[in-house]
Amino acid sequence: MVFGIRAVQEAIAAGKEIEKVFVKKGLQGDLFRGFLEVVRQHNIPYQFVPIEKLNRLSRKNHQGVIAMISAVVYQDIEQLVPMLYDEGKEPFILVLDSVTDVRNFGAIARTAECAGVHAIVIPEKGGALINADALKTSAGALHTIPVCRVSSLNEIVQFLKNSGLKVVAATEKGAVNYNDANYQGPVALVMGAEDTGISSDLLALSDVRSKIPILGEIESLNVSVAAGILMYEIVKSR
Amino acid sequence: MVFGIRAVQEAIAAGKEIEKVFVKKGLQGDLFRGFLEVVRQHNIPYQFVPIEKLNRLSRKNHQGVIAMISAVVYQDIEQLVPMLYDEGKEPFILVLDSVTDVRNFGAIARTAECAGVHAIVIPEKGGALINADALKTSAGALHTIPVCRVSSLNEIVQFLKNSGLKVVAATEKGAVNYNDANYQGPVALVMGAEDTGISSDLLALSDVRSKIPILGEIESLNVSVAAGILMYEIVKSR
Repeated sequence: MVFGIRAVQEAIAAGKEIEKVFVKKGLQGDLFRGFLEVVRQHNIPYQFVPIEKLNRLSRKNHQGVIAMISAVVYQDIEQLVPMLYDEGKEPFILVLDSVTDVRNFGAIARTAECAGVHAIVIPEKGGALINADALKTSAGALHTIPVCRVSSLNEIVQFLKNSGLKVVAATEKGAVNYNDANYQGPVALVMGAEDTGISSDLLALSDVRSKIPILGEIESLNVSVAAGILMYEIVKSR
Repeated sequence: MVFGIRAVQEAIAAGKEIEKVFVKKGLQGDLFRGFLEVVRQHNIPYQFVPIEKLNRLSRKNHQGVIAMISAVVYQDIEQLVPMLYDEGKEPFILVLDSVTDVRNFGAIARTAECAGVHAIVIPEKGGALINADALKTSAGALHTIPVCRVSSLNEIVQFLKNSGLKVVAATEKGAVNYNDANYQGPVALVMGAEDTGISSDLLALSDVRSKIPILGEIESLNVSVAAGILMYEIVKSR
């Protein structure tokens, strides 16, 4: 963690990856306004929180601003996909639409690494924090597999489509049984949030909607288990 | 929880399901010896622990004995399997060899319920405690799916074999790719411990050894994800 407006601003200027900035509600002044401008320019996620939250994060003199340094180095999906093609690979990308539980996120990253996924795409807002729990649950996968944090999932999924990837959405509103679909060729698998599923915009962009049948009384699988079943189904076609 | 030798003995006599009994190390006396006899007769798991552990569990006057009441009603696998056949069903049983992490156990139970598994078999010793965390992670599945706690996994897997179930072991030492195996008919899927895998005795009893391919650098999948992939592969054959 880095504390204080000037220290965080210096960390940003030095090119440090910032996971998220927490700002005290009601913070004012020219220094702060300039700081917020820089944070926005760099597309760094930030959140206004009560002073008590900041005090829980650190007892140091934080002056109303705390930045969490990222545990991973984020990569650029728009550079990565052409590179995969250049290397003669068929891209296999995992898009996580607002998976917020850090353990689920870590478990998904672990499976993704095992299944040969080339990169995980997460949104700047509404995703899981990549913290110590996530790293531990991932069994180190988050140090290996590229993670790409993007400001608009819709735009990036459109970019993946334009790049020749088949967009597969995991959804209970799916028309196809997941093992009847054709996953050959470059694929982007989109998994949705634990509670609300995939956003309607992303669903509309998808080429294939895959449904895992539920035979019992519980309505849904855990998202990390569902992701595992689908990733390995896709592996079979590769 | 129930505290004290007499209270626990009464709970056992009343037919309450006991998850586990914790006993103070070095406890002596006729009353205690009689009590331990009863615990053993009922095949209730027990463990000798330092007094500090008991004091952490409860500040009440426990007199060196604390019993955890089970959150689930255990069922008898040797009655359940013939019943399934009588109902015209092909048994699908999940055997967990020492899966100790309560969240993994809960997640596996959730997937098992969704995949139409008829019962989960766990060992009396070395399995996960079915506590509040396990129940929560299971999304309620542990209230629905029968759980059978047995004193010898080897004997029960032999019983399942004798009852016509194909024993499928998930192992990295497997000779077959998991999607090349034939899972038709009654099946018992055996999943191993997070660290050590399936015991060699159980492996020797298995009819099919299934291996999920690992394409990345991490050596293994999380056990709850691996269990999900295999359970749903078996679902396809049903």
